[in-house]
Amino acid sequence: MLETIPNRYAGRPYQVELTFPEFTSICPLTGAPDFGRITIRYTPGDTLVEQKSLRDFLTGFRERQIFQEEAVNAILDEVVASCDPVECEVEGVFNARGGIGTRAVARHVSE
Amino acid sequence: MLETIPNRYAGRPYQVELTFPEFTSICPLTGAPDFGRITIRYTPGDTLVEQKSLRDFLTGFRERQIFQEEAVNAILDEVVASCDPVECEVEGVFNARGGIGTRAVARHVSE
Amino acid sequence: MLETIPNRYAGRPYQVELTFPEFTSICPLTGAPDFGRITIRYTPGDTLVEQKSLRDFLTGFRERQIFQEEAVNAILDEVVASCDPVECEVEGVFNARGGIGTRAVARHVSE
Amino acid sequence: MLETIPNRYAGRPYQVELTFPEFTSICPLTGAPDFGRITIRYTPGDTLVEQKSLRDFLTGFRERQIFQEEAVNAILDEVVASCDPVECEVEGVFNARGGIGTRAVARHVSE
Amino acid sequence: MLETIPNRYAGRPYQVELTFPEFTSICPLTGAPDFGRITIRYTPGDTLVEQKSLRDFLTGFRERQIFQEEAVNAILDEVVASCDPVECEVEGVFNARGGIGTRAVARHVSE
Amino acid sequence: MLETIPNRYAGRPYQVELTFPEFTSICPLTGAPDFGRITIRYTPGDTLVEQKSLRDFLTGFRERQIFQEEAVNAILDEVVASCDPVECEVEGVFNARGGIGTRAVARHVSE
Amino acid sequence: MLETIPNRYAGRPYQVELTFPEFTSICPLTGAPDFGRITIRYTPGDTLVEQKSLRDFLTGFRERQIFQEEAVNAILDEVVASCDPVECEVEGVFNARGGIGTRAVARHVSE
Amino acid sequence: MLETIPNRYAGRPYQVELTFPEFTSICPLTGAPDFGRITIRYTPGDTLVEQKSLRDFLTGFRERQIFQEEAVNAILDEVVASCDPVECEVEGVFNARGGIGTRAVARHVSE
Amino acid sequence: MLETIPNRYAGRPYQVELTFPEFTSICPLTGAPDFGRITIRYTPGDTLVEQKSLRDFLTGFRERQIFQEEAVNAILDEVVASCDPVECEVEGVFNARGGIGTRAVARHVSE
Amino acid sequence: MLETIPNRYAGRPYQVELTFPEFTSICPLTGAPDFGRITIRYTPGDTLVEQKSLRDFLTGFRERQIFQEEAVNAILDEVVASCDPVECEVEGVFNARGGIGTRAVARHVSE
Repeated sequence: MLETIPNRYAGRPYQVELTFPEFTSICPLTGAPDFGRITIRYTPGDTLVEQKSLRDFLTGFRERQIFQEEAVNAILDEVVASCDPVECEVEGVFNARGGIGTRAVARHVSE
Repeated sequence: MLETIPNRYAGRPYQVELTFPEFTSICPLTGAPDFGRITIRYTPGDTLVEQKSLRDFLTGFRERQIFQEEAVNAILDEVVASCDPVECEVEGVFNARGGIGTRAVARHVSE
Repeated sequence: MLETIPNRYAGRPYQVELTFPEFTSICPLTGAPDFGRITIRYTPGDTLVEQKSLRDFLTGFRERQIFQEEAVNAILDEVVASCDPVECEVEGVFNARGGIGTRAVARHVSE
Repeated sequence: MLETIPNRYAGRPYQVELTFPEFTSICPLTGAPDFGRITIRYTPGDTLVEQKSLRDFLTGFRERQIFQEEAVNAILDEVVASCDPVECEVEGVFNARGGIGTRAVARHVSE
Repeated sequence: MLETIPNRYAGRPYQVELTFPEFTSICPLTGAPDFGRITIRYTPGDTLVEQKSLRDFLTGFRERQIFQEEAVNAILDEVVASCDPVECEVEGVFNARGGIGTRAVARHVSE
Repeated sequence: MLETIPNRYAGRPYQVELTFPEFTSICPLTGAPDFGRITIRYTPGDTLVEQKSLRDFLTGFRERQIFQEEAVNAILDEVVASCDPVECEVEGVFNARGGIGTRAVARHVSE
Repeated sequence: MLETIPNRYAGRPYQVELTFPEFTSICPLTGAPDFGRITIRYTPGDTLVEQKSLRDFLTGFRERQIFQEEAVNAILDEVVASCDPVECEVEGVFNARGGIGTRAVARHVSE
Repeated sequence: MLETIPNRYAGRPYQVELTFPEFTSICPLTGAPDFGRITIRYTPGDTLVEQKSLRDFLTGFRERQIFQEEAVNAILDEVVASCDPVECEVEGVFNARGGIGTRAVARHVSE
Repeated sequence: MLETIPNRYAGRPYQVELTFPEFTSICPLTGAPDFGRITIRYTPGDTLVEQKSLRDFLTGFRERQIFQEEAVNAILDEVVASCDPVECEVEGVFNARGGIGTRAVARHVSE
Repeated sequence: MLETIPNRYAGRPYQVELTFPEFTSICPLTGAPDFGRITIRYTPGDTLVEQKSLRDFLTGFRERQIFQEEAVNAILDEVVASCDPVECEVEGVFNARGGIGTRAVARHVSE
């Protein structure tokens, strides 16, 4: 789980966007590295994502075998489980492989 | 038909965008090559497009005589038939011919 | 009238955008040449605009004396009369004259 | 008052955008010159703005002491009074002064 | 409190955007400086923000220890308290720290 | 011949660059219009090029049938004959025709 | 051999640059298409390259199996053999394959 | 004369570049305003240009009737007379008038 | 050692530039990943670098602890040892760490 | 003094460029903060600049009153004194103050 810090402005809905341009993981099919930029946009609930633990979490994909579309969903699940945001969207834009570039966007809205 | 892989996050609506900047086909009127960038945006249903078979399908237009507007619709038909997405949009942006550049966008929404 | 070609995908509403960056006409007030970029966006009905006749039509403004705002409307009238699109928008972006740049956009929706 | 010319396409609502990147006036507080870009967007009624008189009007601010936000509103008032547009928006983007850049946008809708 | 000046066009709703690209403060965790760009967008009520006092207020964060998300909310509070705008939005875009860039946006609507 | 004006700083070698982005002529082979950007760089001798006569000269190619490479050389000849510069270079960058863009640069150095 | 046209300004050394952004050939190792931009820069001798035959020559690589570095040298050989330029340089910039982009530049100077 | 400040590093040749993007003067022929960007590059001798007096000097062209090429030379003369630099270059890049943009560069080297 | 392929144009000096934008290694001091773009420029001797073995070599830094300046020199050593180029230059441009970005360039000329 | 690390490739002349875009100091005349980007380019001798101590040194200007031209020279002196490079150049590009932007470049060559 990501660490969190208290949101001192929890009464006011506002947006936070965190960008990590140095995402890299391993393609399960080819074993070759993938590279991309991850952007997390969320409306915080009672807590904010602690950024150092987020960086360690994202850097931890370096040795993981995972499809690009699944990585985006896995990051969304982790952020939602950790800080229960009002809304959250995770976007991954990945460098082309075999001539095809991929972008994936997943969203969560708390009920 | 394009090959597909199972969508492990089928319960959550999310978007995938695939970009292929090296599309080329043959103009039926002049016999000269056309060049363009194809972008496929879709909300997957139970399956994702397998990217290697997509690349082979798009590369296969290299010797085909087809109008640019028709190529965009033909690609949309193939993606829809192959993986039955919730929504799908195909966009083609083609280099100018005779001083006129063309962009075409076609959409499908599953019923 | 512009020539047209049959729309093989008439049952599916889709968009086509044609860009002509080399438009030039003559200013009726000063007799000096105007330069601009014309973009035509339309949802085709039963026919598509044939691009060679469109280029000849647009090149034909080279010797015509016409205001920039009127040229945009005249092009819209011609496209609508020729291929009866579901919707059509014509945009002209013209180089500055006397320090003032002009952009005009006109739209037609079939009833 | 700005001069106007008849709008030959008055029956069709369309948009015109005029851009003047060489606006300069005098700051009332410091006496130093301000510089900015003025953009006028309007849906013409029965008349169009005559561009030479518009340029003379805007150039006439060169010696005027006026706040940036007020200049934008004053230009909007002049355009509305002169040609009674269906809608009109004036935007000014001004170079930074004291490290702060300013942008102001005012709108008018005819009743 | 920020100083204000009377809004001579208070009867007409319009937007003002003020940009300050040289914001710097101190990170409470590491003691290292943060750098960012602050943008304030508001619809003025009876008064406008006086820009010199705004600059002094923003420059005053240079020695303050404050999280980036909190700085954005603190600036919004100050603007709202000072000039009671109809609407106000404050955006901060901060340089990456530890490989992660941050953007935060907070809004206030008067009741 | 282009008109000239006296060079008040003839004793000091300096450079002048004049750019005309709206050059158009007619291709002798196809009869279709060509479009390009002409740049004239010169070290003036006793006279400077008078800009209004230069504009009229360049606009005068609008109805002329001439190859792009020849237009660049013809413009160089005219500038040299008119104002006898210490050095002069003319560059033309022309829009692509048949998929091929052309750039030509010719130079003259006075003896 | 490329066709040529007489150089009417053969007595004056000047430069011509021809750009062809739609080059495509086949990789001999993988059988997959390569894409690149070819630029030819030359100082003409007694003849200029005829552009239509150049386009046909470059388009003719579409079905040829050839390495990128060799294509650049082969194009240089053809231009030199056809029009005997004073100097000639051919540059190819090719899209990345396997994550590696290639640029090659070959030159010829007549003796 | 511009004010100067002592150059504490006079023993080491180094370069200083000062850019003033808000230059405006009056065209002697048309009476219309000109706009441009002035860049001063110099290797200081015993003194540096004091920037506030430079700004006042450059702002003082606002009401002056002067050709663009002459303004560049006049600014060079003033800088050289005021601080006797080892080398100095003044460049002016001016907005297009009548479709023609102008750039002028003058240099001085101390003997 | 990198694999090589014969240079069919060894008699003509020409340049090849290979760009690898997805370089990543491990910082020996912090254990955190570094990211950069490696560009290799060389004049081939009797052989060309085989690109697949180059990619594998560069990807092999993913788990290596090495300073950025040393990585650039180590890559140069490998290319020189493998294909004995006439000249070779290796450039690395690395993402900022602790607010400081690094670029290093090393060259080899065969004797 | 900056800390250094041994240069393992001291026998081969190569270049290192370090960029610090977050430089800020205090203007001695106005007391207001200055902001700029510092770039250090050097050919290392027996040692490399240790980057963490460089960052601390550059961050240490935050409270210092110093002219921009002097800051560039002071940084050059420190780098030269610390690691005795074969050559070193320091460039500072500073945000505009009073409408004038400044860039200064100083160089040192070891004897």
